[in-house]
Amino acid sequence: MAGLGTVGTGVYETLCHNHEILEARANIPFLLKKVAVKNPAKKRSADIPGELLTARWEELVEDPEIDIIIELIGGTTDAHRLVRAALEARKPVVTGNKALLALFGAELFRLSAEKGVPLYFEASAGGGIPIIQSLQNSLICNHINSIIGIINGTSNFILTKMEQQGVPFETALKEAQRLGFAEADPTLDVNGKDAAHKALILAMLAYGTPVTPDKIFVSGIERIEPRDFEFAAKLGYTIKLLVVIRHHEETDSIELRVQPSFVPETHLLSSVNGVFNAIAVNGDIVGETIFYGRGAGKNPTASAVIGDVVTAMRELHHPEHHTGFHPYAKPLRIMHINETKSPCYLRIRVMDRPGIIAEIAGILAWHGISISATNTLDGEPDAGGVMWNDLVFIVHTCPWGRLQAALAEIAKNPDIGSDPAVIRIEKFHH
Amino acid sequence: MAGLGTVGTGVYETLCHNHEILEARANIPFLLKKVAVKNPAKKRSADIPGELLTARWEELVEDPEIDIIIELIGGTTDAHRLVRAALEARKPVVTGNKALLALFGAELFRLSAEKGVPLYFEASAGGGIPIIQSLQNSLICNHINSIIGIINGTSNFILTKMEQQGVPFETALKEAQRLGFAEADPTLDVNGKDAAHKALILAMLAYGTPVTPDKIFVSGIERIEPRDFEFAAKLGYTIKLLVVIRHHEETDSIELRVQPSFVPETHLLSSVNGVFNAIAVNGDIVGETIFYGRGAGKNPTASAVIGDVVTAMRELHHPEHHTGFHPYAKPLRIMHINETKSPCYLRIRVMDRPGIIAEIAGILAWHGISISATNTLDGEPDAGGVMWNDLVFIVHTCPWGRLQAALAEIAKNPDIGSDPAVIRIEKFHH
Repeated sequence: MAGLGTVGTGVYETLCHNHEILEARANIPFLLKKVAVKNPAKKRSADIPGELLTARWEELVEDPEIDIIIELIGGTTDAHRLVRAALEARKPVVTGNKALLALFGAELFRLSAEKGVPLYFEASAGGGIPIIQSLQNSLICNHINSIIGIINGTSNFILTKMEQQGVPFETALKEAQRLGFAEADPTLDVNGKDAAHKALILAMLAYGTPVTPDKIFVSGIERIEPRDFEFAAKLGYTIKLLVVIRHHEETDSIELRVQPSFVPETHLLSSVNGVFNAIAVNGDIVGETIFYGRGAGKNPTASAVIGDVVTAMRELHHPEHHTGFHPYAKPLRIMHINETKSPCYLRIRVMDRPGIIAEIAGILAWHGISISATNTLDGEPDAGGVMWNDLVFIVHTCPWGRLQAALAEIAKNPDIGSDPAVIRIEKFHH
Repeated sequence: MAGLGTVGTGVYETLCHNHEILEARANIPFLLKKVAVKNPAKKRSADIPGELLTARWEELVEDPEIDIIIELIGGTTDAHRLVRAALEARKPVVTGNKALLALFGAELFRLSAEKGVPLYFEASAGGGIPIIQSLQNSLICNHINSIIGIINGTSNFILTKMEQQGVPFETALKEAQRLGFAEADPTLDVNGKDAAHKALILAMLAYGTPVTPDKIFVSGIERIEPRDFEFAAKLGYTIKLLVVIRHHEETDSIELRVQPSFVPETHLLSSVNGVFNAIAVNGDIVGETIFYGRGAGKNPTASAVIGDVVTAMRELHHPEHHTGFHPYAKPLRIMHINETKSPCYLRIRVMDRPGIIAEIAGILAWHGISISATNTLDGEPDAGGVMWNDLVFIVHTCPWGRLQAALAEIAKNPDIGSDPAVIRIEKFHH
């Protein structure tokens, strides 16, 4: 094992604590042979024998008695070198490194296939939730219509807090940091990038085709306000940061994006609160399935890593039977975000004067966008005493690109404030 | 494959329809060699070549070119003989037969272990939901604290209908039959027996210990009335037919039962509606996970069967590595229902006269049972003009046996109607 941070410590402790149950069930004896860490002399919470530690991850690859490598270093430099070296040396790798697979997945899956050495990554998307192995095994006969998920616990905790207590984003974020659910630098969690990494992994697995990070459109939750939740509730929705991966049969292309979205209260995903994650997989044979659980954290992630280690042990002498990432289809086209369609919620700050609604409605109409509802939310005067209100528009299904063109034109009006908030309305149909 | 009913037809059609995707992902060529049916001459919806059909299931076992047997006959006579014969002949078996495993699981799992020939049963509990493989693989390092689930779609459809439309049990049942969600004889679905079969399978898998059907306490939903939902809603609950499998560490015993239960609206299981199933698995390492999907039906069940077939193919030449049912613990004790504890909801029909509440409350108190709330629901006069009301009591956590003793005594009072409705209140804590 390389890395003895939070997850590495969880793996070590669980291997000790549940050793008996694990060996009886797995039916294969196994031994943690060596643990590579940056500084073997450092004092650690885990009571790990000093002789297991080494400062060189290369030793794991070189040691002929080591069959399987667990990569928990994190980051994309040493981790990348280690995974490459292990696969080259024909040692199966277990990793939970989502950034690594999002950035270098295409290369590493290709190397894994070339060498016939499996790469296991259950912990890389959805933490303890058995989504990867389910896609690889039980759901194997399904063409995946869509995967729609809440796969960032920090942002879901913040949105839940905002909804339930009516507090602004910053307050909810501070609470998340206080409770240890958000890091000091929460950027990747709240801007959707972390969810995007996981989305890329799920899309690659579902469609057997490499996807590079530039193909996914990402926006975060920083601009959501408590009043958006109020308006959503009136219409029977809540707001979640959704990963949407959806196959469009008519164009044989994939919609791939991370965006804050209205989720109908009738859909189970709307009830996924706090740090929990949930992933809805719609397969052509199985129909809708949903997987729910803790998507991060020491023990849930360790659970997934150990599950993979056992699978790696079972498949050690017959890696050709691993149902991992197998390119099976002609490369699919990823839709440009501008081609994707849905109804949307728009919140636009405007100066309180007659005619302003008509002007905005006129521009939307000129772009062929129909309005299904509109409302004015009371605003506040600015420093100069000018009154600004929030206008809300619900627009019917239209292409994202067309809406952006309309919004760009609307933004030219000097009586309209900075960037409007745009939240997609997710329909969950197929 | 033996059996070409609903699920068998689904398997055949899916193998044809998704053949390409399946072979590419599974990376193993495979062939459906023979299909045993009762009457090969019968006209069928599936467009299956006549030369594949045979009337003798024994041929599947005898044919040296057949490696894996899929048992979809149903019932527990021929199916039992076939599975036994296949395991004896060292041919791995895939089955979705919950009654077979509930009744003969202990025997068949023992035979499978003795012969070193795996028995796969993903489709036997939860239909298309990948619960079995998840317990066997991804969650393998977890000690299972509890499994709490909604695993009968027919009864869940009826309860959902009753809750959402306020209709009585019989009306909801008729609607379920009209839509094909309930069979002409719905007994096993509404009395909890079908859910109990699946619960036995899950318990055996989770705790690695054989469990016989007499060890599980089962009650059904036949006596639930719309007014129970109204009262539940007032307290923030809904009513579901829950399977409860819970390990009690202090006594090292397992609570194992199927009973209608109040489920808090804050828990995701309360939002599982219609024919959908959901299973909440709480593991000591992973925490709470929930698996949701279609628990029955042609295609969802076929999806699970084919997932197992692929696993069986992968493990064909190294069955020793199958993480199936491995007894790993000392035999656990199943708690008698009378030892299990929870708060409860009681609805008791009583004659409308002064003092009746005090009498019932007195008997409960004498048995050491505390009342946390009580209410009178308006009733109707009987044929003789005597007015009968429904009294509702919510009682604090107490042993089931003690509550039954109190109810037996209460029932002796001639002013009290037939059997009271008792619904447990599920707390979901650990």
